[in-house]
Amino acid sequence: MNIALGLSELCSIVGIDGVHADDRTFTGIAPLDHAGPDDIAFFFRPEFAAAARNTRAGLVITSTALAEHLPAAVLRLCHPDPEEAMARLLEYLAMSAKPQGGAIHHTASIAPSSTIAKSARIGAGTVIGEHVHIGDEVEIGAHVVIEDGVAIGERTVIESGAVIRTGTVIGKRCRIGSGAIIGSEGFGFIERNGRYRHLYHLGNVIIGDDVEVGANTCVDRGLLGATVIEDGVKIDNLVHIAHNVVIGEHTAIAAQAGIAGSTHVGKRNRIGGQAGLTGHISTCDDVTIGAQSGVSKSITQPGEYSGTPAVPLQRRLRSEAALRQLVELVPIIESLAHKFAPKPTDQLRDEQE
Amino acid sequence: MNIALGLSELCSIVGIDGVHADDRTFTGIAPLDHAGPDDIAFFFRPEFAAAARNTRAGLVITSTALAEHLPAAVLRLCHPDPEEAMARLLEYLAMSAKPQGGAIHHTASIAPSSTIAKSARIGAGTVIGEHVHIGDEVEIGAHVVIEDGVAIGERTVIESGAVIRTGTVIGKRCRIGSGAIIGSEGFGFIERNGRYRHLYHLGNVIIGDDVEVGANTCVDRGLLGATVIEDGVKIDNLVHIAHNVVIGEHTAIAAQAGIAGSTHVGKRNRIGGQAGLTGHISTCDDVTIGAQSGVSKSITQPGEYSGTPAVPLQRRLRSEAALRQLVELVPIIESLAHKFAPKPTDQLRDEQE
Amino acid sequence: MNIALGLSELCSIVGIDGVHADDRTFTGIAPLDHAGPDDIAFFFRPEFAAAARNTRAGLVITSTALAEHLPAAVLRLCHPDPEEAMARLLEYLAMSAKPQGGAIHHTASIAPSSTIAKSARIGAGTVIGEHVHIGDEVEIGAHVVIEDGVAIGERTVIESGAVIRTGTVIGKRCRIGSGAIIGSEGFGFIERNGRYRHLYHLGNVIIGDDVEVGANTCVDRGLLGATVIEDGVKIDNLVHIAHNVVIGEHTAIAAQAGIAGSTHVGKRNRIGGQAGLTGHISTCDDVTIGAQSGVSKSITQPGEYSGTPAVPLQRRLRSEAALRQLVELVPIIESLAHKFAPKPTDQLRDEQE
Repeated sequence: MNIALGLSELCSIVGIDGVHADDRTFTGIAPLDHAGPDDIAFFFRPEFAAAARNTRAGLVITSTALAEHLPAAVLRLCHPDPEEAMARLLEYLAMSAKPQGGAIHHTASIAPSSTIAKSARIGAGTVIGEHVHIGDEVEIGAHVVIEDGVAIGERTVIESGAVIRTGTVIGKRCRIGSGAIIGSEGFGFIERNGRYRHLYHLGNVIIGDDVEVGANTCVDRGLLGATVIEDGVKIDNLVHIAHNVVIGEHTAIAAQAGIAGSTHVGKRNRIGGQAGLTGHISTCDDVTIGAQSGVSKSITQPGEYSGTPAVPLQRRLRSEAALRQLVELVPIIESLAHKFAPKPTDQLRDEQE
Repeated sequence: MNIALGLSELCSIVGIDGVHADDRTFTGIAPLDHAGPDDIAFFFRPEFAAAARNTRAGLVITSTALAEHLPAAVLRLCHPDPEEAMARLLEYLAMSAKPQGGAIHHTASIAPSSTIAKSARIGAGTVIGEHVHIGDEVEIGAHVVIEDGVAIGERTVIESGAVIRTGTVIGKRCRIGSGAIIGSEGFGFIERNGRYRHLYHLGNVIIGDDVEVGANTCVDRGLLGATVIEDGVKIDNLVHIAHNVVIGEHTAIAAQAGIAGSTHVGKRNRIGGQAGLTGHISTCDDVTIGAQSGVSKSITQPGEYSGTPAVPLQRRLRSEAALRQLVELVPIIESLAHKFAPKPTDQLRDEQE
Repeated sequence: MNIALGLSELCSIVGIDGVHADDRTFTGIAPLDHAGPDDIAFFFRPEFAAAARNTRAGLVITSTALAEHLPAAVLRLCHPDPEEAMARLLEYLAMSAKPQGGAIHHTASIAPSSTIAKSARIGAGTVIGEHVHIGDEVEIGAHVVIEDGVAIGERTVIESGAVIRTGTVIGKRCRIGSGAIIGSEGFGFIERNGRYRHLYHLGNVIIGDDVEVGANTCVDRGLLGATVIEDGVKIDNLVHIAHNVVIGEHTAIAAQAGIAGSTHVGKRNRIGGQAGLTGHISTCDDVTIGAQSGVSKSITQPGEYSGTPAVPLQRRLRSEAALRQLVELVPIIESLAHKFAPKPTDQLRDEQE
């Protein structure tokens, strides 16, 4: 990333007070171990102390506590929360790189009954159906399909290639990733004599504010009611959210996880990559589910869970430890069994005694 | 979902005989616990009896056996199969909401050698290659890509953003989900000296009638012959079907499952979410495979299988139960071993005795 | 696949010397058990000997060692590496079926600052942003989105519906599958008081030469630096590659596997389907990871690994065998424990004695 930031400007962006006579300009931002004399780097985790000791960065933004690890010659700025400082700088740079002002690409196809805010940007080839509402400063990439009756709140970003199906409601400041399908038809059938009859899904998807949905993730619409993704939820790539699922506020779901139909996930859950939750269960608030775990029953106590079937993490670790020991214990058990286990003749003898 | 259905019309749609003097109009359809006085609700599972007892629905369609759970004041219609009644009503409403008659959006791009039935509907920006055949009443969404030589049977729906690659054959009344890739290049190589050489796949995908394929699911084309999805198969979102796989009639495959190359799945199998089947194996008819299971060998007996590696469900449950007990048994085994296991000095003493 | 190849032409394509007076023409290529008298079949694996003995193929390309399994009447060509011969023939046929010469579909939308080689082919509806460079003989399907600043090397194929996001660099002779998202925004946040703040990702994706990426696979861009896919890597469908991952040369990754952020995979690794690697770890060169395995720690020794958590394959197999035995051993352990384990009263008695 090529940038051009003076020291004073940088301080103002990341929220550091003070005047800097030395108004050097930095032209890049890079990890500690890749940064050169014109680059800004960030140092906020003790485990990067080795990289910090050897950094050639022109400027390091860090905390007072960590600054001691830096070479004396390295210019540093101390921030009470250097990771937050990094988040601010990245946001500033990302926003600066974006084109400003409303614009609709001439190849976009927009039904006349839809209302598009003047400050919205619509990319090439994007298709917008009937009765769609697009809010202020919404940014829609290329080749997005937005079907009839969709509403998208202000400052939301829909990346290139996403499909937003009929009746979906998306809040403010969301990000819907490339290739994501929001409002896909649900997987519901009735089975009669070994044949499946499709249940047409008349519900929709409702997404709150500040939600992120990753690339190629699918969120199915509800059968009758809605599939609901509450405020602040973050969903990674290739995740499957089935019909009528509810995901509670500020829950994070890692890549390739799947949530089956009608399951309710609590607030502030963290669901690991490739984990699966079966249908028609619930998790309470503040649950962490390990990667690749399979949750087959409702979880009613906050805490960490892991494994298939998922159990509290400590139980899982004890179980794994026991399984590791088992390999050595099997021959011992067998020799003990051979020595002591009552055999038919032994039993006979016992009874005779 | 807003609707406007009179009682007599409703009876005719779901298949209930009789005259209804009270021709009230219902304006919604909702779950038992969300329905209000103008809504229709369905009650077909005993586990919803509590919701039924408290429902405020204007009308409940249920069975004679379940009707007793409803409050006396609630209007009800008894149907021999109320779930089937629901399926019929949902289908009726979904069909009513669709635009009727053939139409090709002016932004669609269709090669001149292709034949499109007059009753087919083609969405905005959709691209159709050479020598494609689109049957009667086929409905194709926006931004679909249909490559050369594809044939699509009557009344099939291809949702927005799907890609149907060269030579694919799709039957009647199918649904191909948004973002699904049908006929993707297979993952086949020859390896020589640690390098892979691509095998160009010249086969195709053949899909029967009444098949559903979920959003962002991938079905690879065959290397020489075809990858085959037989009649009535239902596939959920984000599923991977590799080259030369055959999926038998009326099999259902839940989200994020994967079937590796050349594997043959029998008829009426049910494959759970995130399950995986290795390549070059087969399953017989009427096999159920649990979620997240890993099937590494052919299955020749109908029944339920679970786990990685997958074994008959009962064996898997016994194995899990034993593993749960193991944690308590390990210290017992160790104390027994300590008490009885021959140690070097014991052995010596034994020999001396 | 319909073809028309004479015997001499065929020999020249697959690399067999010699003159063939019998210049028959073959019109198809099929598996041994499906091939008819006008078809070419290949026989290179001993496990297909039964199919070979019954083949009705007009011509079989095989090795000297395997030829004995063929019926005497079947015409055969012996090749030192018949699988390589098949790869050559498939490539020849695939290349012959392709349209030749540069062409840009009139519905494609290309920003004026981009440079497109004259020999490149660009499909219908494809969108190309600013400052993109498309090399010689690049082939881009329909409805592809190529965002600003992307560079694509010569002879690379981008299949219909793929999205190549800002700043991605792709080498020569690659294949990017339909629906794949290259350069998707990474899943990185800082968490403060149970809320997530997005980290804008300013890095990109760098893909080497001869890389294949499957359908609907996602490769996230780096936070600051790049996510790197080195030369010769082959990635199947629906795979997730997170931000700042590095995949070493000639590694193969099967469908639905996932690699979490900042993990470095060595050269010539083979990662099975649905396997997962946690973030911030590494694997050395020449590691094989079984399907559905979960790798939670760095792997520093070449070899085969399996299970969740992944351990060397032999350990995993012993562990599974012990678990299978456990079911029978539990009652034995319990009876031994009952017989010998000291109980409170026993202990008392012991002490009194």
